[in-house]
Amino acid sequence: FLTISVSSKLTPDKPCKRLVLYYHDILFNGTDLANATSANVTNDSALGSHFGMVVVFDDPVTADRRLRSPPVARAQGFYFYDRKDAYNAWFAYTLVFNSTEYKGTLNIMGADPLPEKTRDLSVVGGTGDFFMARGIATFRTDEAQGDYYFRLEMDIKLYECYK
Amino acid sequence: FLTISVSSKLTPDKPCKRLVLYYHDILFNGTDLANATSANVTNDSALGSHFGMVVVFDDPVTADRRLRSPPVARAQGFYFYDRKDAYNAWFAYTLVFNSTEYKGTLNIMGADPLPEKTRDLSVVGGTGDFFMARGIATFRTDEAQGDYYFRLEMDIKLYECYK
Amino acid sequence: FLTISVSSKLTPDKPCKRLVLYYHDILFNGTDLANATSANVTNDSALGSHFGMVVVFDDPVTADRRLRSPPVARAQGFYFYDRKDAYNAWFAYTLVFNSTEYKGTLNIMGADPLPEKTRDLSVVGGTGDFFMARGIATFRTDEAQGDYYFRLEMDIKLYECYK
Repeated sequence: FLTISVSSKLTPDKPCKRLVLYYHDILFNGTDLANATSANVTNDSALGSHFGMVVVFDDPVTADRRLRSPPVARAQGFYFYDRKDAYNAWFAYTLVFNSTEYKGTLNIMGADPLPEKTRDLSVVGGTGDFFMARGIATFRTDEAQGDYYFRLEMDIKLYECYK
Repeated sequence: FLTISVSSKLTPDKPCKRLVLYYHDILFNGTDLANATSANVTNDSALGSHFGMVVVFDDPVTADRRLRSPPVARAQGFYFYDRKDAYNAWFAYTLVFNSTEYKGTLNIMGADPLPEKTRDLSVVGGTGDFFMARGIATFRTDEAQGDYYFRLEMDIKLYECYK
Repeated sequence: FLTISVSSKLTPDKPCKRLVLYYHDILFNGTDLANATSANVTNDSALGSHFGMVVVFDDPVTADRRLRSPPVARAQGFYFYDRKDAYNAWFAYTLVFNSTEYKGTLNIMGADPLPEKTRDLSVVGGTGDFFMARGIATFRTDEAQGDYYFRLEMDIKLYECYK
């Protein structure tokens, strides 16, 4: 083994791979079982702004904005709200790819402070075609319709690519 | 510091360390307090296939298949089910080693789609004897007995080893 | 790209960056809405020692021990208890920095076995000023007042710094 320092220069504007994806969350509203792709598993606490509401999801991810486009991946995981005076979420989830283009997963976690226009989360690992990947997932809210549908643009930039 | 690109070649068939372990989950069934090592903290949603059921666990991990073998580690964390039409889980947990052989932890997260024969999750970090480790944890269901016991083979392959 | 082995020598006593921070958790007790910064979203299971209690938090983080010092960051995420016969917790959260000194996040997960004097968790990623960082977060309980306030010293040591 070569003994190196791993403190190197990665340049944020030069990812080794980049994927721009759209995430669609259709929260179960109590009646729409056929379309729902997520469900809250705890209720709001008394602290306000949905603080404490945990949502488990298996959400379609598409290459363009259209919910009805063929999914290029599934996003499986959970988010919850965690702020009293504003909507602020926290995500941990896996992007599961199973297409002719990509097979494998990316694992992502981080804070999602909705008042910010864009939010950076960490891509902490990957498998299959994304073996051992790391990077940044930048969220931007692309649309929010009431409480039961929102769409995020997820701009996935990988800076460590091993495959 | 040496300026390098971290896009190197790691070879999936040559981990720097490998551990094959067995994880035993004994879900509390309402009466078996003495043996239970996990408990569901939320109930199934209406979406089906246990979608939304969150389970917190402190499960024994053994070097062979036998539940009663002396544990070589504990697995502490949680999983939940997140699919409507099939059993699909998502895990985040820590393997806690405190033996003469190993002291330290490995932190793991990722999707566990049960219909697949093997599933890859990410080892996203480690401490102690596993200082700063990264790798892949491959799950295979070794046995499932009804709703209250299952055993996973966890094939842990580390590709970044710093100790 | 240069082909390297990433199995290098990192030295635990020589982080590339270090931050010693204090985390204050004020759990909602049912009445103190103004001061509370966290809330339990599930209740204890029957297994004991709060096993199964999940707490979502947006906690202030200060540079010294004083709760009323100006926060240098927020800690946003969750913990839960997961042991039958002792207090043992598991954390996943984001340190959110938004000050003149630092802007960005650190993402952290791991086990927190309270009977140990210090506990090591993994810093699995970072964004902004902590772009792509990795390291170790060492917890030490600095104070615990009954069920509704505790303070942790979080000694954050980064061993991979890219910025």
